[in-house]
Amino acid sequence: MRVKNNIILAMDLMNILDAYDLSEEISNYINTIKIGYPLTLSEGLSTINIFKENFDFNVICDYKVADIPETNEKIADLTFKAGADYLIVHGFVGSDSIIATKEKAEEYEKDIFLLTEMSHPGAKKFLQPVADDIAKMGVEMNIKNYVAPSTRLERLSQIRDIVGKDSFIISPGVGTQGGDPKKTLNYADALIVGRSIYESEDPETAIKNFIF
Amino acid sequence: MRVKNNIILAMDLMNILDAYDLSEEISNYINTIKIGYPLTLSEGLSTINIFKENFDFNVICDYKVADIPETNEKIADLTFKAGADYLIVHGFVGSDSIIATKEKAEEYEKDIFLLTEMSHPGAKKFLQPVADDIAKMGVEMNIKNYVAPSTRLERLSQIRDIVGKDSFIISPGVGTQGGDPKKTLNYADALIVGRSIYESEDPETAIKNFIF
Repeated sequence: MRVKNNIILAMDLMNILDAYDLSEEISNYINTIKIGYPLTLSEGLSTINIFKENFDFNVICDYKVADIPETNEKIADLTFKAGADYLIVHGFVGSDSIIATKEKAEEYEKDIFLLTEMSHPGAKKFLQPVADDIAKMGVEMNIKNYVAPSTRLERLSQIRDIVGKDSFIISPGVGTQGGDPKKTLNYADALIVGRSIYESEDPETAIKNFIF
Repeated sequence: MRVKNNIILAMDLMNILDAYDLSEEISNYINTIKIGYPLTLSEGLSTINIFKENFDFNVICDYKVADIPETNEKIADLTFKAGADYLIVHGFVGSDSIIATKEKAEEYEKDIFLLTEMSHPGAKKFLQPVADDIAKMGVEMNIKNYVAPSTRLERLSQIRDIVGKDSFIISPGVGTQGGDPKKTLNYADALIVGRSIYESEDPETAIKNFIF
């Protein structure tokens, strides 16, 4: 994937008209967006195609899929059928659940991202202690795309060491959550930025602050 | 919650017409259903109200919510606004993510279920080793409703010991996955049954096999 300006816009808005307007404002700088369940539940899976047809964005569906293999497969099928390019999948539920989404992605000639770690405080208790093992499992499964947060750079660096230089890491947490964008790009291939852009009165200028 | 015949139907169908037909067939025996993302992504959140208005079912949304607190809150808000009675939430993302859904549920005078453990093979690696700790965290958070699988009864018994006799446990895994329904009800308050009912040529008779 080629991510223009190494910035992925987290389109965490709740309605498609706002998202469409924002897309028009920033499409000279951005070619990749991440959408989540809030927008999808509000407006339906058809939003994916709106972004594809009107802006030719790469669309990453951040559904943090975390179910049994049979259900993960159904979710992946619906998501890729709706036009998604990538689906973000939790590693915590184990390899069979991940494989179910990866094989479905391959049917559509698409791919998944494996979520190794999260940066909110609650993640410290169960998720962070096994984040390295989740990344190692991903490598064993030949997964090439990872999500790892920018808020603790030594952890991001460690994940990079595990998944190797040829893997593709995208990293949330810069901007509002406090991660340093420039330092993050020492280890990650692209930044995921949301509120700093879509809550800005001038999203175009806000984006430029993340271009190096 | 009063679950008629102690059976929750896992409505894992992909379109609302099939789900509607099945609901008509079984509504004398069932008053509580569980729906997941496959049906919701296919047909929209509005399916919830179809079940509420036509059958007055208790609707448990099994979205296995596993995001940061801000996103969990948005997902919970949309789900309860759409008419859900309960939302199933992953425990491994930590207490803040869970609290975000629980507080939103309380705004709607609804509630959550905390998922402690899963029974697919992949769950052995990361999830099962911390399942007891997730249940203990739930007790500390004053959570009253839990999901725990029926496929290993000694584990289900252990979760019951942790969450106490006044908590409400619902248990998937009987039927196709091999859990024993009668023994499961020694520890769980209700069985979650899916394929054994909706794949049966005679769902009504299939249900009766689970009534004791």
